[in-house]
Amino acid sequence: MRPWILVAGGLLHASAVHAEDPPEPPTLSSILEQAPASAWETIPPQDLLIVQVADARVVIELAPEFAPKNVANIRLLAQAGYYDGLAIVRSQDNYVVQWADPAEETEQARSLGEAAETVPGEFDRKRRGLDLTPLASTDAYADQVGFVDGLPVGSDGKRAWLTHCYGAVGVARGNPTDSGNGSSLYVVTGHAPRHLDRNITVAGRVIDGIEALTALPRGTGPMGFYEDEAAYVPLVSARLASELPEAERPSWQRLRTDSPTFQALVESRRTRREAWFAHPVGRIGLCNVPLPRRINPG
Amino acid sequence: MRPWILVAGGLLHASAVHAEDPPEPPTLSSILEQAPASAWETIPPQDLLIVQVADARVVIELAPEFAPKNVANIRLLAQAGYYDGLAIVRSQDNYVVQWADPAEETEQARSLGEAAETVPGEFDRKRRGLDLTPLASTDAYADQVGFVDGLPVGSDGKRAWLTHCYGAVGVARGNPTDSGNGSSLYVVTGHAPRHLDRNITVAGRVIDGIEALTALPRGTGPMGFYEDEAAYVPLVSARLASELPEAERPSWQRLRTDSPTFQALVESRRTRREAWFAHPVGRIGLCNVPLPRRINPG
Repeated sequence: MRPWILVAGGLLHASAVHAEDPPEPPTLSSILEQAPASAWETIPPQDLLIVQVADARVVIELAPEFAPKNVANIRLLAQAGYYDGLAIVRSQDNYVVQWADPAEETEQARSLGEAAETVPGEFDRKRRGLDLTPLASTDAYADQVGFVDGLPVGSDGKRAWLTHCYGAVGVARGNPTDSGNGSSLYVVTGHAPRHLDRNITVAGRVIDGIEALTALPRGTGPMGFYEDEAAYVPLVSARLASELPEAERPSWQRLRTDSPTFQALVESRRTRREAWFAHPVGRIGLCNVPLPRRINPG
Repeated sequence: MRPWILVAGGLLHASAVHAEDPPEPPTLSSILEQAPASAWETIPPQDLLIVQVADARVVIELAPEFAPKNVANIRLLAQAGYYDGLAIVRSQDNYVVQWADPAEETEQARSLGEAAETVPGEFDRKRRGLDLTPLASTDAYADQVGFVDGLPVGSDGKRAWLTHCYGAVGVARGNPTDSGNGSSLYVVTGHAPRHLDRNITVAGRVIDGIEALTALPRGTGPMGFYEDEAAYVPLVSARLASELPEAERPSWQRLRTDSPTFQALVESRRTRREAWFAHPVGRIGLCNVPLPRRINPG
């Protein structure tokens, strides 16, 4: 009863695929299937934050190379169980989902324990010292764009920063640039809000289970906050993979963005040779590049 | 219990706003409040498709200037009640929601009535003759970008096309470029899939109620199709506003993108002077520009 089939172009009906069609050119799937083991690298377990949101598991990859102080504070909070029992308090359509301590700013606020209450904003860092794989593309927000360790990056030549692409995880803050501490994190769930780049700390990226966040009912209050506490979605727990018993510890790999496989992937997405495409495009935007992750097969 | 407050920068805690802060610069809200009536224009009722999705109402603005033949076919389908009782069959995270006749390609397929089964793809059109308000911005996918009648547009100087920004409504098709007919439409619900530009007909944009689509559970089948018909979301009805009894007919207005108000809005979003911003950005992307609509106050 479902006539649609899986073809890389998307939006295809089965009627569109005929026996006489030429074989499909390389696609994301076929490129990944043929990737050598060396194209993948294991994500350190201390960089994986495993978050239980209601009945679903969300996996966040932390980015200590860009946000060392904020990531360190997030790790302290996770290790102390600070996040367990918090709530998702906000879902703003085409923008972000955010979790927080609903009692924050009250006497019932949860203690941060050994974690710092203020952490310097790590909005950008020196470009020098970064092994940045450039992406040949123009970008509305950055002079140069590319990838570092599987994450999308912007640069002006001197500074470099993680960009707010879909799935980016950031550290909510007030007006003072050091007022974030990782107790409240947000996830980008809409078109990339790149005006936040260099204004707030990006501390990582959701690499699995994002549907548990993006499909949440939108909040009806200003900025998508849930108006009724009954709408809060429980954040059951957040644990570093490195803290989990070995038997329960997930292991994930990222496709190396400095690998020939990744270059092939980018080019297959830049110039679309699939039969469906009437116009081969020939261009690609930073936040449109897939950044594959997989469960460690080893 | 909710310490967050509404400030244009977003992600703000109440603790961040102090009495001594300077007054906030113009924001989207303040600019729209001060807009003269002449900055708004009423959307023709034959360009409004009112879609009932389960318990929610979604309003689509059609774009006959870019897709006259496809819009004409969609109007025929709506007038004949073709859409009533179809279903949303697909929700693919960070991509699209799509509706269709679940019985398509079977003997139970619903008749298209007087509507055409194939309609030429209207992927782009002549740039000449369009009153395009340019946006000063670089863009990964188009040499020039701007706005026509409140919609985001790309151009290479000779041709122009509606872009796949969040909320864009397109006409699903198979491989033949004329295989779409408007019976199955999709809505962009993630980061703009601009590689679809010039490859498929954009026929309009969701201007109200998009949350009823974007927060739907993601399909678990390939390409986000729902695997179980029990997951289908009912498309109860789709009606042109022009066909509704006058008492029930909604009237909507769009902010004219050739108005000084719109220019002020773009500049307020390009250069962020709100206290929250540590870095004023100074840039803006095509799909990041708000395109206000309102219920006709007249």
